Amino acid sequence: MALENIVALVGGVGGAKLAHGLAQILPPERLTVIVNTGDDFWHYGLKICPDLDTVMYTLAGIVDRTNGWGLAGDTRAMLGAMGRFGETPWFGLGDQDIATHLLRSQALRSGETLTQVTQRLARALGIKPALLPMTDAEMPTMIETVEYGELEFQVYFVKHRWQPTVRAIRYANAESAAVSAAAATALERADAIVIAPSNPWLSIAPILAVPGMRDLLCRRDIPRVAVSPIIDGKAVKGPAAKLMSELGYGEVSARTVAAYYRGLINGYVYDERDAGQPIHEEDMQMVMFDTIMTTEGHRAVLAEKILHWIGSW
Amino acid sequence: MALENIVALVGGVGGAKLAHGLAQILPPERLTVIVNTGDDFWHYGLKICPDLDTVMYTLAGIVDRTNGWGLAGDTRAMLGAMGRFGETPWFGLGDQDIATHLLRSQALRSGETLTQVTQRLARALGIKPALLPMTDAEMPTMIETVEYGELEFQVYFVKHRWQPTVRAIRYANAESAAVSAAAATALERADAIVIAPSNPWLSIAPILAVPGMRDLLCRRDIPRVAVSPIIDGKAVKGPAAKLMSELGYGEVSARTVAAYYRGLINGYVYDERDAGQPIHEEDMQMVMFDTIMTTEGHRAVLAEKILHWIGSW
Repeated sequence: MALENIVALVGGVGGAKLAHGLAQILPPERLTVIVNTGDDFWHYGLKICPDLDTVMYTLAGIVDRTNGWGLAGDTRAMLGAMGRFGETPWFGLGDQDIATHLLRSQALRSGETLTQVTQRLARALGIKPALLPMTDAEMPTMIETVEYGELEFQVYFVKHRWQPTVRAIRYANAESAAVSAAAATALERADAIVIAPSNPWLSIAPILAVPGMRDLLCRRDIPRVAVSPIIDGKAVKGPAAKLMSELGYGEVSARTVAAYYRGLINGYVYDERDAGQPIHEEDMQMVMFDTIMTTEGHRAVLAEKILHWIGSW
Repeated sequence: MALENIVALVGGVGGAKLAHGLAQILPPERLTVIVNTGDDFWHYGLKICPDLDTVMYTLAGIVDRTNGWGLAGDTRAMLGAMGRFGETPWFGLGDQDIATHLLRSQALRSGETLTQVTQRLARALGIKPALLPMTDAEMPTMIETVEYGELEFQVYFVKHRWQPTVRAIRYANAESAAVSAAAATALERADAIVIAPSNPWLSIAPILAVPGMRDLLCRRDIPRVAVSPIIDGKAVKGPAAKLMSELGYGEVSARTVAAYYRGLINGYVYDERDAGQPIHEEDMQMVMFDTIMTTEGHRAVLAEKILHWIGSW
């Protein structure tokens, strides 16, 4: 089966890694990366899109490799100066990073869409695959916590270091959001859709919550595969495992994630470290790979294995 | 004569020095500094107030002493990163400096006046004298040049390094500007008004162009003194001398500046280096001092001499 056009749905660090793997092996015009923007927020008058920036900086090869986000070699002089004014900044904004936020904020204020400004910034950084926000609307992920009530995503995730207990997740403003034309076109032309090993509730669910997105995916009779972010009962990074138990999904496992994606995907990649607990789901092809992407080469290898596998269906 | 309340009208670097001299010798509640905001502009979505910031950073003791503006020890990582996006920044924005612009821009967008946010920022930096913009309105100084037509002030001053030939100066939007209540009150209560050795056309004239400002000054029967920015036919800093000849004011001299301020001031301070060309103006008391403020101590000495002199009238 010929797989011409690939669309990846991704969140932050884990998603960026798989997107980078795909970008390494595919001609750029064949790859579209649709990114979660539920984490986006306005902060000090700057529009900050953490996942878009993580993916953008990763694809451009300028990401801070230690953190997996932010710019390599960036400094924090602006944040330090906020202290003079009695501010206690809780969100990491690098000085170089601020250039991105300034240009984006200015463009949005002048009427450009997030899709337009993202493409402009990504191209300036030499990124050739299409990098698209899931929607041009603001659709903030809101986290209902036991301790603090409802929190904006970054307040939950960064300020409180995802320690509050999550009771529910709400995708605010979804009713007035829509899949952007560019994202819809990419999905309609896709020969395969790959859901990255990003947090299913915090990174992928916001994408799926954009009105029309789930339909666009499900009506395509093509490989639609997800990669498990859970390996051996633990999240590779971040709060996925903690969230699963807080939200009552039972067992924290790759199997539970597969069940969560039921009806959406027809293929599932989980880690060979979970070989002892084989997963079976009706209408879902299964495969095990080494999914931990510790090096840039690993990213390309995993992407290659996934595409080779679904190409053989 | 008792001089309780002093108001200084100031521009950028030279004005900041005299304001700092006054701040060193006066109880803070007796000093109000009214600053030119004709240089203000929006840049990359940030509201930048060069003169207010120069005065604020100088009074707070955190100014870059080499340049006389900007923050000591500041870096330019954000500006450097703009290059990645094809931008060629021409206005110096330090990384620490950006914190000021972000907080101010956010406050203005949320409805605070420039007076309010300036006072808040200045207090946070430990500045006790009142620091006030000349108006809360946007009243940009526009420079009509021979080479490029009309330019925004910073485009003329920074981007073109004040090299274009100036044909005329316009204070845009003056018709809808007004002296802020705080500035008006300070002028009504003033026991003396000191016009700093700032550029008469680019720094002081915009202040005087705010509707009502000139009346507020002239109807006060108190010492109203200006300090010459021209010494021995040259400007201490910046384009004052160049402008004088371009605008057809004839001889570039302290005398010409005195004539320019005719009707506004009743006292004039010029440098003792010009003792060979004594100045006489009707209705203007004259005095010569060493007006070059090379050290912080010199600033206080000059301020003290001026206040002592007008106290003896």
